[in-house]
Amino acid sequence: MKHIVSVQLTKNGPKYLQITEQITRQINEAVLLPGDKLPPIRKFAEQLGVNSATIVKAYETLQNRDLVLKIQGSGVYVGGSGNHDTNTHHDDDLNDDELYLDDEIDLMQHGSIKIGKAAINFATSTPTSDMFPVAPFKKAINEVLDRDGGKVFEYNESNGYLPLRRSICTLLRDSYTIETSVERLQIISGAQQGIDIAAKALLTPGDSVLVEDPTYTGALAVFKSRGARIAGVPMLSDGIDLVYLEKSIQFYRPRVLYVMSDFQNPTTYSYSEEKRKALITLAQKYTFYIIEDDYLSDLSFSNADRPKPLKAYDNPLNQRVIYIKSFSKLLMPGLRIGFLTAPKRICRDILQAKHLTDIASSGLIQRAFDDYLRSGVWKKHIQQMCSRYEKRHTTLAASIRTRMPGSIQESIPEGGFSLWLPLPSDVSAAQVYKAAAKRGILCTPGNVFRAGKRDFDDHIRLSIAAVDETLIDKGIQILSEVIEELQDHTGMEEFISPLM
Amino acid sequence: MKHIVSVQLTKNGPKYLQITEQITRQINEAVLLPGDKLPPIRKFAEQLGVNSATIVKAYETLQNRDLVLKIQGSGVYVGGSGNHDTNTHHDDDLNDDELYLDDEIDLMQHGSIKIGKAAINFATSTPTSDMFPVAPFKKAINEVLDRDGGKVFEYNESNGYLPLRRSICTLLRDSYTIETSVERLQIISGAQQGIDIAAKALLTPGDSVLVEDPTYTGALAVFKSRGARIAGVPMLSDGIDLVYLEKSIQFYRPRVLYVMSDFQNPTTYSYSEEKRKALITLAQKYTFYIIEDDYLSDLSFSNADRPKPLKAYDNPLNQRVIYIKSFSKLLMPGLRIGFLTAPKRICRDILQAKHLTDIASSGLIQRAFDDYLRSGVWKKHIQQMCSRYEKRHTTLAASIRTRMPGSIQESIPEGGFSLWLPLPSDVSAAQVYKAAAKRGILCTPGNVFRAGKRDFDDHIRLSIAAVDETLIDKGIQILSEVIEELQDHTGMEEFISPLM
Repeated sequence: MKHIVSVQLTKNGPKYLQITEQITRQINEAVLLPGDKLPPIRKFAEQLGVNSATIVKAYETLQNRDLVLKIQGSGVYVGGSGNHDTNTHHDDDLNDDELYLDDEIDLMQHGSIKIGKAAINFATSTPTSDMFPVAPFKKAINEVLDRDGGKVFEYNESNGYLPLRRSICTLLRDSYTIETSVERLQIISGAQQGIDIAAKALLTPGDSVLVEDPTYTGALAVFKSRGARIAGVPMLSDGIDLVYLEKSIQFYRPRVLYVMSDFQNPTTYSYSEEKRKALITLAQKYTFYIIEDDYLSDLSFSNADRPKPLKAYDNPLNQRVIYIKSFSKLLMPGLRIGFLTAPKRICRDILQAKHLTDIASSGLIQRAFDDYLRSGVWKKHIQQMCSRYEKRHTTLAASIRTRMPGSIQESIPEGGFSLWLPLPSDVSAAQVYKAAAKRGILCTPGNVFRAGKRDFDDHIRLSIAAVDETLIDKGIQILSEVIEELQDHTGMEEFISPLM
Repeated sequence: MKHIVSVQLTKNGPKYLQITEQITRQINEAVLLPGDKLPPIRKFAEQLGVNSATIVKAYETLQNRDLVLKIQGSGVYVGGSGNHDTNTHHDDDLNDDELYLDDEIDLMQHGSIKIGKAAINFATSTPTSDMFPVAPFKKAINEVLDRDGGKVFEYNESNGYLPLRRSICTLLRDSYTIETSVERLQIISGAQQGIDIAAKALLTPGDSVLVEDPTYTGALAVFKSRGARIAGVPMLSDGIDLVYLEKSIQFYRPRVLYVMSDFQNPTTYSYSEEKRKALITLAQKYTFYIIEDDYLSDLSFSNADRPKPLKAYDNPLNQRVIYIKSFSKLLMPGLRIGFLTAPKRICRDILQAKHLTDIASSGLIQRAFDDYLRSGVWKKHIQQMCSRYEKRHTTLAASIRTRMPGSIQESIPEGGFSLWLPLPSDVSAAQVYKAAAKRGILCTPGNVFRAGKRDFDDHIRLSIAAVDETLIDKGIQILSEVIEELQDHTGMEEFISPLM
């Protein structure tokens, strides 16, 4: 099933740009899908009644925008709006004295921005330390130090402290309906390391990786660093766009698909059960691996039956899912502990990748975490987190309904601590970010999360992970004022510019 | 200065093999150096009075041994006896039921072997937990938990806890004559992570990396995983072979040279001051980076003035050295803490690499380590380590002199806890490893540490990091018996085989 490129030329503006813009729109609106071939140059030129050079220029512009791929001797194809950058060495001296928005977004994408003090911080998705179970952990640490002494500071097995792996097997079976074994469990120093290790085990330079678009920037940084070709697939409210995904699979033949099936970051969308099953079927059909990053599934507010993690639907005889679980958002980010469970056939590569990455995770933290899990307070802690964040979400929703009438079509997420807020059509997220920051309000502009050139400047992500309930409405009030001012200002500019 | 290939043909054996073997020997003995060109095929064939096909076959065999590189349209060149493997995916199911020597060495090279219980373990280079300062660390952990509460478990700055970076700056200035600043310090979760992060910041697939040969296998695994071309440069007793190194630099144009300037692993050799300075000069002349892995310089037995770390000789105006310091061997391996200091122009890339690797190192461990460093017991601890290991080294040396007369020409190392023991010429390290293991003695066969195809089957590494003083002589006694038996056995085989 090929999709037809449709271009209508008018008398306004250069012809190559009209062609470029119309094809760009059809790619962004998924009228054209990855792998669709653009018409041959001469034929298209004849059809439109333009010079061949006009088509060449249009295709070149599309290529510069990373929207199409030219395959020598074959033709020009629609790509996945991916990021095909290659690594470059930066040997120039740094100049960090002045930081402009583009740099900031670049740094946020690389995850290394230092966000200054703000009155109200809707940008961070990290809970504040008043939520941490410090006392039970201090107890656990002292218990294991008294019990195991110096052993705590020996090298651990690279795959992790065995009793902890046993505890996690039990937890996975009882709470996530995931069957695994200690041999297929790898302890990791946080989910970020899990992604890095999985990428080392699975990817060689030039391999393709498909990601949800928008997605978590820390994962993109890993795949880029491995020299992978990255292509984004649009997210819908019930999970990734399956039609677009299958076209992208056929075109890119990916080695890996990276997904967050619950409360996806940044969209907060969760996958339907059907889509979860469909992903497993596709992974088996086209023989790729799925990295499932479960950073937040526990933080579900609804009591209704939610779908199980993707991993729970994996085919035991032909496993395709690497399930990574982080405790950074749920417990304490500074713990730097998590785990992954992988198909048996890649466990040895995973282990070697872990070893070359940092030999092993801290034995002290592993033992204390095991002690903590066995003490049985984990479930109670999660319940407290849920009740706290559900309250904040309710407050946030009420505030948005009052302060931004008509601006939000999306429903309130069923869990997590973020909201993917669509902006009025004439307001740019980058501008909102900048203007809000001046008034002490931090949010995250949509393009921070883009996988390639697909544009998310019409959304901001609001996180309430670290915003006290009493401050939410004040923050939304200021934000709504900022957006209104920008709307007025944009209107003014449009009105004034023809006269200037 | 080109080196001349010299081949003398006899009537014994196939001619291509004679040519292959003689050139192999000249490469291994460094008569031929990297970049030396082998004679053109037709000319060489005429000169030796053989068919061109014979030369082609010989060159192909050398290429299969990774000893030469064929450069299309130019000729055949001597390589650095490097490892030019590319990564491959292993999708086959694992079968770990039976483990043979080759597999074991392979696993040791990948660092993921599980060494079983042995009566006497000369293989591990990790101190036992009775040496660890557990009590002061437990105190430090509780102090920081009481002082900082939940803050301890928040995300840390990716470059590390600032007060710890300040402490380390002071330590570097006072004890290592290294001047740096908190901006150029990066806290890492152990030296292995330091190598991984430096490699991510510096290397793109296809870049060349030079290493000492033999070297630390954990570093090789990182460079391989980055898709680097690795070439080994022979070690001499006063440091790397500079002539060979410069030829290799000219031939490979490396991005990175990886060295351990003190008590190199596994040879235990340390660099002379002249060689340290020469490395800095070369790095500036040819614009590459040096990764200096200082895992053990503190463990020096002699009171005489030792050269400073390589980093202390770096040119402040054109820095070339990334200095990585581990505390795994000196303090406690399970801490997973260390640091690196890098030239300013690459600090941002290093920081981004750290962030994509695991976001940040454990805040709890960083704070406790800082507390420990400030308590002033660090120097006392190092003195205790030195005195303990010097005693063991003295015992080891006496035992070897008694039990293996004439077998060891090398002097006792001036520090560290290993010995690079040459074997009698007719005994293979792989055989010694196997036969000794059967009698409960573990050692490490030389080829575990090889960077490419250069052969170290004539050495074993003996470590006394975890061997109690009372067991050293017993271990050496058994080892000497094993070696003697193998000598007899080898002799027998040679005597018997013509009759069979």
